[in-house]
Amino acid sequence: MFSQLGLIGCGLMGGSFALALKRAGLVKRVVGYSKSPSTTDTARRMGVIDTAAESALQAISGADLVLLAVPVSATEATLRAVRHMLDPRVLVMDVGSTKCDVVETAQKVLGPRLASFVPAHPIAGKETAGVQSADALLYQGRQVILTPLPQTDAAMVQKATDLWSALGCQVLKMTPQNHDAAFAAVSHLPHLLAFAYFSAVANQAAGRDFLSLAGPGFRDFTRIAASDPQVWRDIFMANKTEVLAQSRQFRAVLDQMEQAIQAQDAKALENLLRPVSEARGKWQLGQLGPLSTAKPR
Amino acid sequence: MFSQLGLIGCGLMGGSFALALKRAGLVKRVVGYSKSPSTTDTARRMGVIDTAAESALQAISGADLVLLAVPVSATEATLRAVRHMLDPRVLVMDVGSTKCDVVETAQKVLGPRLASFVPAHPIAGKETAGVQSADALLYQGRQVILTPLPQTDAAMVQKATDLWSALGCQVLKMTPQNHDAAFAAVSHLPHLLAFAYFSAVANQAAGRDFLSLAGPGFRDFTRIAASDPQVWRDIFMANKTEVLAQSRQFRAVLDQMEQAIQAQDAKALENLLRPVSEARGKWQLGQLGPLSTAKPR
Repeated sequence: MFSQLGLIGCGLMGGSFALALKRAGLVKRVVGYSKSPSTTDTARRMGVIDTAAESALQAISGADLVLLAVPVSATEATLRAVRHMLDPRVLVMDVGSTKCDVVETAQKVLGPRLASFVPAHPIAGKETAGVQSADALLYQGRQVILTPLPQTDAAMVQKATDLWSALGCQVLKMTPQNHDAAFAAVSHLPHLLAFAYFSAVANQAAGRDFLSLAGPGFRDFTRIAASDPQVWRDIFMANKTEVLAQSRQFRAVLDQMEQAIQAQDAKALENLLRPVSEARGKWQLGQLGPLSTAKPR
Repeated sequence: MFSQLGLIGCGLMGGSFALALKRAGLVKRVVGYSKSPSTTDTARRMGVIDTAAESALQAISGADLVLLAVPVSATEATLRAVRHMLDPRVLVMDVGSTKCDVVETAQKVLGPRLASFVPAHPIAGKETAGVQSADALLYQGRQVILTPLPQTDAAMVQKATDLWSALGCQVLKMTPQNHDAAFAAVSHLPHLLAFAYFSAVANQAAGRDFLSLAGPGFRDFTRIAASDPQVWRDIFMANKTEVLAQSRQFRAVLDQMEQAIQAQDAKALENLLRPVSEARGKWQLGQLGPLSTAKPR
């Protein structure tokens, strides 16, 4: 049980965390700060926060738990603004989708206070941003990745693990490097592809006519293209190397498939498609074995 | 009301059509043929068909409505097998996802019997193929595109329109060329991208570890990668020119976005992402106006 959550950033992720803590009876009071006063107003009206702070520093004053839920690009400025007030006994976490950049920033800015900072990435989201989409159940049943450093206080890692577990999450630990490689593959690249694909269709001369014919496959494939552009701009830039590496692997397979189409080589094309269809079907059921055409890269 | 549906191909699309007709009380009897005897067995046990035919020809014998629901690559052989038995008063339709190739085949094979053939594409599907996934409500509330030719009997087009409307569909008419261009954009390319993307991730050395971390965004983005590989092989090959043209437009936008990431140009990247996020949000609500960055191509 925490007495006071200092919430810096009251958007979808931060707001949902505050609501989840309240729902679980894990916090008495939430003091929230947001760059936009209208966000803190809405957050207070929705019961996401109890008190609106006028600065990040004010939000963490008296807190025994701090959550940084700002766009990745604002992490450094925010940590600089609050670092001298951080109590080494207070658990500080972020919720960013990239971890190498956050860890690097924290190492640079926090100095000896690094020990109480536990970088966290809850694998949850919505394609609608903002506090108005905050949801007490957003994190329930989801995975949360923690990427502690050798300097991180083990007690803080335990406290973070207990906290997310109490919200119904499955907690995993990884290095920041492994985290960023994995999420470039399963999250960042699909977002980039969905943005690029929707843009390409919509910007054609007949794009609006085409879009009026789109069905449920299109709807699901492009759902993530409605995601927050500022959040995703920051993620793509922060995880540039891994995202571009994943895109090269994707393009290599797309090239192969298109060559088979171009050559009207039905056999080759089917050999490329069939193991994918089978593997995706098994993945959905949690039964994915090695792909029959798996080639280590 | 029809007396007898002759169903050639008893998979997801054909089976769902038979179930929908029965549910709407529009057909007395369904005689079905499938290349695989186990499929017709299952179809009979499920009540999808009433009688299993031993050939396509037998399936249409005595029918006053014929549906061709075979993979696109089997269209020509099927039409050749049944053409001499086609009664000019009997409506014949297909359900293929590509239309230029079907129309070309029908023109070549059917001769004077072309008048009663109404090419149709119901915009519905599932990522699970086969008669066991057949669903009486698959087509309800969906669009159906008819692509009649100048030679098509207007009364047959009307009969087809009335029939799909009675199943709860919205019926649109287009040329086969416009159909194939539109569906390359909103359906065929996303399927190709989903297949290529899932393959690229799953075939990496750490692919299975990555996949265990994938969340709901990944799930929705890759749902269509579980689609029937044989059906999609045929669609990609039949609509090759349009699919490859759409892929070039997609790659051009992906190039732009990657260049902005590579150059760490936050402003340029956000300018590429923001109109997409906004347009996709509006599309979902049926409120899509012209994109603010729209450039005619």
